Amino acid sequence: MALVREAQRYEDTIHFEVGQPDLPPPPGVRRALKEAVDAGKFGYTESKGLLSLRRKIAHHYRREYGVEISPERILITPGTSVAFMVAYTLVLGVGERLGIADPSYPCYKNFATMAGAETVAIPAGVEAGFQIRPEMLEGRRLSALHIASPNNPTGTLYDQENLEALVRYCEAEGIALLSDELYHGLVYDTKPQTALAFCDDVIVAGGFSKAFCMPGLRLGWLIVPESLADTAENVAQNLYLSAPTLSQYAALEAFDYDYLTQVRETFKIRRDRLHDALKEIFDIQAKPQGAFYIWCDASQYGDDAFDLSRKLLQKVHVAVTPGIDFGRNATQTALRFSYTRDIDHLIEGVERIVRYL
Amino acid sequence: MALVREAQRYEDTIHFEVGQPDLPPPPGVRRALKEAVDAGKFGYTESKGLLSLRRKIAHHYRREYGVEISPERILITPGTSVAFMVAYTLVLGVGERLGIADPSYPCYKNFATMAGAETVAIPAGVEAGFQIRPEMLEGRRLSALHIASPNNPTGTLYDQENLEALVRYCEAEGIALLSDELYHGLVYDTKPQTALAFCDDVIVAGGFSKAFCMPGLRLGWLIVPESLADTAENVAQNLYLSAPTLSQYAALEAFDYDYLTQVRETFKIRRDRLHDALKEIFDIQAKPQGAFYIWCDASQYGDDAFDLSRKLLQKVHVAVTPGIDFGRNATQTALRFSYTRDIDHLIEGVERIVRYL
Repeated sequence: MALVREAQRYEDTIHFEVGQPDLPPPPGVRRALKEAVDAGKFGYTESKGLLSLRRKIAHHYRREYGVEISPERILITPGTSVAFMVAYTLVLGVGERLGIADPSYPCYKNFATMAGAETVAIPAGVEAGFQIRPEMLEGRRLSALHIASPNNPTGTLYDQENLEALVRYCEAEGIALLSDELYHGLVYDTKPQTALAFCDDVIVAGGFSKAFCMPGLRLGWLIVPESLADTAENVAQNLYLSAPTLSQYAALEAFDYDYLTQVRETFKIRRDRLHDALKEIFDIQAKPQGAFYIWCDASQYGDDAFDLSRKLLQKVHVAVTPGIDFGRNATQTALRFSYTRDIDHLIEGVERIVRYL
Repeated sequence: MALVREAQRYEDTIHFEVGQPDLPPPPGVRRALKEAVDAGKFGYTESKGLLSLRRKIAHHYRREYGVEISPERILITPGTSVAFMVAYTLVLGVGERLGIADPSYPCYKNFATMAGAETVAIPAGVEAGFQIRPEMLEGRRLSALHIASPNNPTGTLYDQENLEALVRYCEAEGIALLSDELYHGLVYDTKPQTALAFCDDVIVAGGFSKAFCMPGLRLGWLIVPESLADTAENVAQNLYLSAPTLSQYAALEAFDYDYLTQVRETFKIRRDRLHDALKEIFDIQAKPQGAFYIWCDASQYGDDAFDLSRKLLQKVHVAVTPGIDFGRNATQTALRFSYTRDIDHLIEGVERIVRYL
């Protein structure tokens, strides 16, 4: 956060630190918002969210993955972060153990702490293809496992075979599996599969903040097993009452697949350009297949990438997220680059880094 | 929730169960929303919320209470519920004890459970004027105390002397005091005082859902001591990233004091009419001074008001919230009536109850 603040101080900062898309939402979203304002949609919705929106999400899963999800199993949440909080409340008791990958998104750990649970960081680095694999869970005594595919910060998509194996392992061992699929709309060289394709008992989180380009609308979803649907509704009712109503009406117009394809294509081109440029100066161990991040190993420039990120910001006004934000597993020499700006901006940033180095 | 669902099944239901205002937001809110949509305000804000909005809230506290609050101490939250979650995370460790009034809003207890803390229900019934008083805290070993003024479900406003005494007691005993002032804009016969008037170290929650008539915009605030401001920002960043952006722009136009006065006057008239009508059939131990609830003792009709509420719904299609939702202290014979509909609707409801009884 300190870095973000300093990055905003310079007028000419190059932003590789920003975790939200710079593209506008699907065009129907603006129209839907204004219509909802005119129609006076200012009250709460039911805690699970508008049924019409839950039906659209169910349709999305049928269309994209060929899986049938009852709208009763879907909760609309105020952002995907809060969806995790609901999920943790459902499956983690005080003192229970949650497995997370190292590196991974730093907030997972903090949600678990809020829920009184313990996190077990499972090293999932270059040797594991930046994925958790079933054999890595042996002896960990987990109540729940949280995976993210594509992963933030590495952009790694779980191999389908490994994903299925993990689902089966967790099912057999009685481990609740939470699959964070928020970045699914931004997968570039293949079509991602949902963990729900292999088992109805996993918990899946998604949302409108990334591929749908609606971060400020604060809208996500959580899909839970049928047996947890009523409890999940209770938790939602307690924790946040309902998700923002105008955002829900907006989201009804967000499933504009032509537009979503354009967004994905735009990010794919950026990924390719930034990847080609960065690989000339850093070691990129994880070819990013999704999300909008590239994870670079900067060890050839010293053993303190945090210090390097500070110097890049101060000397050439390039903001990059230091790896240590994402865990302890070879993160101290890593940097995360976001490609959430246009190509000229990205290339200018790389040129400045080259000049500095 | 089951009751709410059944209430929606009948076309002619009289709604005494609804906890959100039926009046529209201040007129500037619609305009602000459309302008924000046109301006493409779809990204995250900083986690604490728009500085311009935090300044407006600071100005509101200066205007209404004569207290100076730095915008740095204010967090914009996605609803007041999430504000409590942040507050509990700040002041409650696993296993620590939180005092709440019995009766009070049922979600408090569940937030505490989520945070791994223990709740201590402090009976605060008719004999205590439905307020917690310092002597009631002796020997309770609390880490934190959560009060609400005006209170849901009783509409009780804490006496200013008692509020000050509680603040002093908690200060002296090292108990973190959380003051829920969400209903402050709806106080009818006097001007409420904030707990912040007596001490900078209390935590105060407020929001736009009730007096500002913006429930579906999901926007609240939390005011924390200066020493907790950075930690609170971290918790916000983790828990929800930022509050809905369009809602924040809308709220910039919500401090329309002429309109807010009209809203308050409307609810005051309803309170007076409903109170006069209900006191003919129930014992009203707590003259409601604020919020939009009237708490009735129905013991003259038997010892099971939950059953009575079910029968009222089934037989005459009148939905009333049973007291047991709010605790265990003489709640089994109590009913909560909301006055969030127009007077004709309210009076029709009372007439149906009279016919049934």
